[in-house]
Amino acid sequence: MTKFKTSLIAVIIMLSGVVTFAQSDSAMIKKIFNEALSNGKSYSNLDYLSNKIGGRLSGSPQAQQAVEWAFKAMKEAGADTVFLQECMVPHWVRGAKESGKAIINSKETKELPIAALGGSIATPAEGITANIVEVIGLNGLETLGKAKIKGKIVFFNEPMDPTVIETFNAYGKAVQQRWGGAMMAAKYGALAVVVRSCTLTQDNFPHTGVMGYSDTIVKIPACCISTNGANWLSNELKKDNNIKFQLQMSCQMLPEERSYNVVGEIRGSEKPNEYIVVGGHLDSWDTGKGANDDGSGVVQSIEVIRIYKALGLKPKRTIRAVAFMNEENGGRGGKKYSLLAKKNNEKHIAAIESDAGSFTPRGFSSDVTPAVKAKLKSWRPLFEPYGVYNFDRDGSGSDINPLKEQGVPCLELMPDSQRYFAYHHTADDIFANVNKRELELGGASMAALIWMISEYGL
Amino acid sequence: MTKFKTSLIAVIIMLSGVVTFAQSDSAMIKKIFNEALSNGKSYSNLDYLSNKIGGRLSGSPQAQQAVEWAFKAMKEAGADTVFLQECMVPHWVRGAKESGKAIINSKETKELPIAALGGSIATPAEGITANIVEVIGLNGLETLGKAKIKGKIVFFNEPMDPTVIETFNAYGKAVQQRWGGAMMAAKYGALAVVVRSCTLTQDNFPHTGVMGYSDTIVKIPACCISTNGANWLSNELKKDNNIKFQLQMSCQMLPEERSYNVVGEIRGSEKPNEYIVVGGHLDSWDTGKGANDDGSGVVQSIEVIRIYKALGLKPKRTIRAVAFMNEENGGRGGKKYSLLAKKNNEKHIAAIESDAGSFTPRGFSSDVTPAVKAKLKSWRPLFEPYGVYNFDRDGSGSDINPLKEQGVPCLELMPDSQRYFAYHHTADDIFANVNKRELELGGASMAALIWMISEYGL
Repeated sequence: MTKFKTSLIAVIIMLSGVVTFAQSDSAMIKKIFNEALSNGKSYSNLDYLSNKIGGRLSGSPQAQQAVEWAFKAMKEAGADTVFLQECMVPHWVRGAKESGKAIINSKETKELPIAALGGSIATPAEGITANIVEVIGLNGLETLGKAKIKGKIVFFNEPMDPTVIETFNAYGKAVQQRWGGAMMAAKYGALAVVVRSCTLTQDNFPHTGVMGYSDTIVKIPACCISTNGANWLSNELKKDNNIKFQLQMSCQMLPEERSYNVVGEIRGSEKPNEYIVVGGHLDSWDTGKGANDDGSGVVQSIEVIRIYKALGLKPKRTIRAVAFMNEENGGRGGKKYSLLAKKNNEKHIAAIESDAGSFTPRGFSSDVTPAVKAKLKSWRPLFEPYGVYNFDRDGSGSDINPLKEQGVPCLELMPDSQRYFAYHHTADDIFANVNKRELELGGASMAALIWMISEYGL
Repeated sequence: MTKFKTSLIAVIIMLSGVVTFAQSDSAMIKKIFNEALSNGKSYSNLDYLSNKIGGRLSGSPQAQQAVEWAFKAMKEAGADTVFLQECMVPHWVRGAKESGKAIINSKETKELPIAALGGSIATPAEGITANIVEVIGLNGLETLGKAKIKGKIVFFNEPMDPTVIETFNAYGKAVQQRWGGAMMAAKYGALAVVVRSCTLTQDNFPHTGVMGYSDTIVKIPACCISTNGANWLSNELKKDNNIKFQLQMSCQMLPEERSYNVVGEIRGSEKPNEYIVVGGHLDSWDTGKGANDDGSGVVQSIEVIRIYKALGLKPKRTIRAVAFMNEENGGRGGKKYSLLAKKNNEKHIAAIESDAGSFTPRGFSSDVTPAVKAKLKSWRPLFEPYGVYNFDRDGSGSDINPLKEQGVPCLELMPDSQRYFAYHHTADDIFANVNKRELELGGASMAALIWMISEYGL
């Protein structure tokens, strides 16, 4: 039904003679894509960020290097001004010791691929050794009951649903046990939690990510386990429900550190006090190199600036490329940006984030009014020649969420999502898993959409 | 303008109340995708074909192994009948010696990454050593003129155009120098040709592929050179136009071999004498493992059979999965299939090929009448939830081209094309460059479209 309605609205707009774009816009968008695909710098920028700096969790020396690099890269892209926005960030470190072993019949041990979840407390130095019980998702705790959980390690083993086409939706469901598992299991008297990695791939990588604690619930250590490891453990538990698990982790939360968002700006030619934000996040998990999450989004945002400057475009509104700090485990950069925008009374007419990987773009999701959504969709014919066809979906990035709460129309680049969770938060989030053209098409799509927003408003 | 017209047609169809599908079709398609994504066998089949059999050029022992494997795989998928269609195929072999060297100042030599083009004759054992001249595309020969070409090696260096979004279109242009280069250059008195690899990636892989000779033109040896090698050579030639090139190749054409198409069939429940073909090609270039070209298409076609059988579906029309032989250098399998279809008076109502890689599907191109195209497009709402939205483009696969000439509506699965030419015809066309979900979505898309065609005709 939705489809029918959608098409009718589109035709009504067309028949009513409302022209929401001009022939020249189509030519401009072609120029933007040609520039990105012929002279793009996003790929070499990402090479540097991933391979010379590498993983850069908030508070780390690498995160600081990334700030300095982004400042320089935005300058080189030709931004009129580049500035920093200071924010304090959590500083969690993984530590040297990290191991998980299954112990069968009190003698046979098997080392399993685990990694501490971001924010977890350490185990005692000698580790925690206890019986392990499997549950499926947070609801599995209630099913099993306190008597069977108390004094044990809980193994959350809900897989991501492979039949969900948009993988972020499957992630959204499965990730709840990662975020809430330690808090919930602690209420049932668990000693620690081991959480199945959020991925649709059967592999040996633990997929880390942030987890939550509450001040009113006892804190217990939490790690993730690779899907292959989880499948093995689950099978073993079917044969023998007396398996013990030994978890040792030396991770810790250090005092907060000073860090920064990096902002590069092209001043608007007609309405310089109206801002359009395009951004990604500069921090990444420490396990990999942060190539797809979210080096891509950062270099694509910087590329928007470079494309405009290379083509000599003079946008009517001010464009800001923002490399946000601390998306992964705190969102402090996003909050700070929004706070300053409010304090400085800056009128933001749109914010676009790229934080869903470097893959071929398919569209833009958005959290906007129906009228704005209709306007975005009226531009679809301009984007379809580039494979960017979907303007229907709701949603936007987490760094710009605080802007959304101020009423700013927020969007997110929507790349093909099939490969994202193969690499997500693992040691395999590396530059080699980024395709140059796919990355460039994403940057060009954002540059093109920003052109339209800058020309016509939203 | 096209967009306006298209949308108007769509609405006229909708307003006129013509319902071209039912609610139950949507549920059936969901079942098909769920089965592919939950219990799919295409990925493990491709693992076997790529890694246990490997590269399988027509006439090779591996091609014969692939025939035997495909027969077995179709049986295992549950085909009602599986049979072979014999055809004679060319048998070209690369030979042990294959090298290309630039010689600067008659002393400094640099080995370059080259590979014989498929079908090329050998050089004399001692090689061909001559001055090398660069031209851009076939037209470059005329620009340079016979006097500057005679007695030399011609270096065709037209790159694929990176600004063309659909990479197959860029390929279609650049590949002309690969196919026709040796014939055309020989007319100008060239001794051999070195052709820039058809890819948008800057890498060290020579990308082979078929080349042509004419009985009326002297045959000269032809090789491809990696893009990095081509760029290096072009730069050197700018500094020194007296560079010599030494080419040694021991490839040869052996007598033709007997080979086979493999056909697996599900007999139609209501109209068994109406056939729907779904296929890919079993042969591949010898340089790689034929994972994306076109192991993917073969295992996806077999998967169509498996999905129908696993779900207990009874299609009205007969479905044939065909693993075609000899697409890469002769097309004999496709010709034979079509010949037999005509001879046996089989009514083919549609043929779908998958030969554009294992990447996330975006739509189906087709060579059909406008009425059939409109019907296909009316099904778009059923496919959009799976990211399959584009039914506009013209084109279909080369194995089914002979069926098209008989008037059969022909289609091709249209995966995302951005990564295809990174691997195409190289040593990097390996299983590791295939993503399981992307592959499965392609197979499911074909199974779903075939369901619609089988239910409603075209």
